[in-house]
Amino acid sequence: MRAPSLATLLAVLCGFAASVPSADKAPAKKSATSREAAVLQVIDRWAKAFRAHDLDGIMSVYAPGDAVTAYDVATPLQYNGKTAYRKSYSDFLDQYTGPMEFEARDVHVLAGGDVAIYYALERMGGTLKSGEKSSLWVRATTGLQRMHGQWLIVHDHVSVPADFETGKAALELKP
Amino acid sequence: MRAPSLATLLAVLCGFAASVPSADKAPAKKSATSREAAVLQVIDRWAKAFRAHDLDGIMSVYAPGDAVTAYDVATPLQYNGKTAYRKSYSDFLDQYTGPMEFEARDVHVLAGGDVAIYYALERMGGTLKSGEKSSLWVRATTGLQRMHGQWLIVHDHVSVPADFETGKAALELKP
Repeated sequence: MRAPSLATLLAVLCGFAASVPSADKAPAKKSATSREAAVLQVIDRWAKAFRAHDLDGIMSVYAPGDAVTAYDVATPLQYNGKTAYRKSYSDFLDQYTGPMEFEARDVHVLAGGDVAIYYALERMGGTLKSGEKSSLWVRATTGLQRMHGQWLIVHDHVSVPADFETGKAALELKP
Repeated sequence: MRAPSLATLLAVLCGFAASVPSADKAPAKKSATSREAAVLQVIDRWAKAFRAHDLDGIMSVYAPGDAVTAYDVATPLQYNGKTAYRKSYSDFLDQYTGPMEFEARDVHVLAGGDVAIYYALERMGGTLKSGEKSSLWVRATTGLQRMHGQWLIVHDHVSVPADFETGKAALELKP
């Protein structure tokens, strides 16, 4: 899962050099930046759909068929293919009522040719059907490919770190 | 943390199309494949160093300075910069004696221009200083950038999924 607010998008687009190693200030910077802007538009489409609790909208930015491999915040180890991953989203969203909450921090985007990677700290939350509010900070990494001119997500990795002293998932951390 | 065995590398290089969506069988396939081979050589250098318990060798494939952002299997949420991440590796390796174990499954590599992404299920283990054997399957995603002709790691995301029913980190899963 991924997607910064518009404010974050602008911060990323305007301040992008800060997240790129200085050794990389080389050729084709302009076209790299336009690729990264296109990737962030995909991320923004995802965010709008997520906030709207719109499963079809969320899935519209994923690559079709078996192209998606996802490591989600909850078990199992991995999901293979869009159908399996859609079920994970569906089970997650079914616990909530109304619009979802989303914010992203420390956003990074790198794009070259037809391959891109996005990573950020993200907060996802909402109101559970029990009426209780829920909110969780996760680490999110997303891989994208441009297929027939369209950027689509082929890989998600969403997690919380483990606390090896207690064996627990660290669900209370904040950046 | 990342890196397939030589057998896995060969499987990936020879059977790569299997992990690429059919819509992507487009132009520049040959040069993309040579990029992916170069990326896998970096991963293999990492694996050799990891197995040899060689902290300097491991860190030699990471980008310098602040370019690295890592989400590691254990807390905290993130590490910023190579120095901080090296400390995480060092603390991990210090628990073990002798050579480390490593294997990778379901390896994917995508490379375009100067950006690449690698993701796989990985098993890491070894003999703890207490004499006990330790082994853990994780999900690993790595982002690389080519800087001055050299592919280096700028992002790692290593995790186990959470079990939300128990609140525990799922440390016993196998692929």
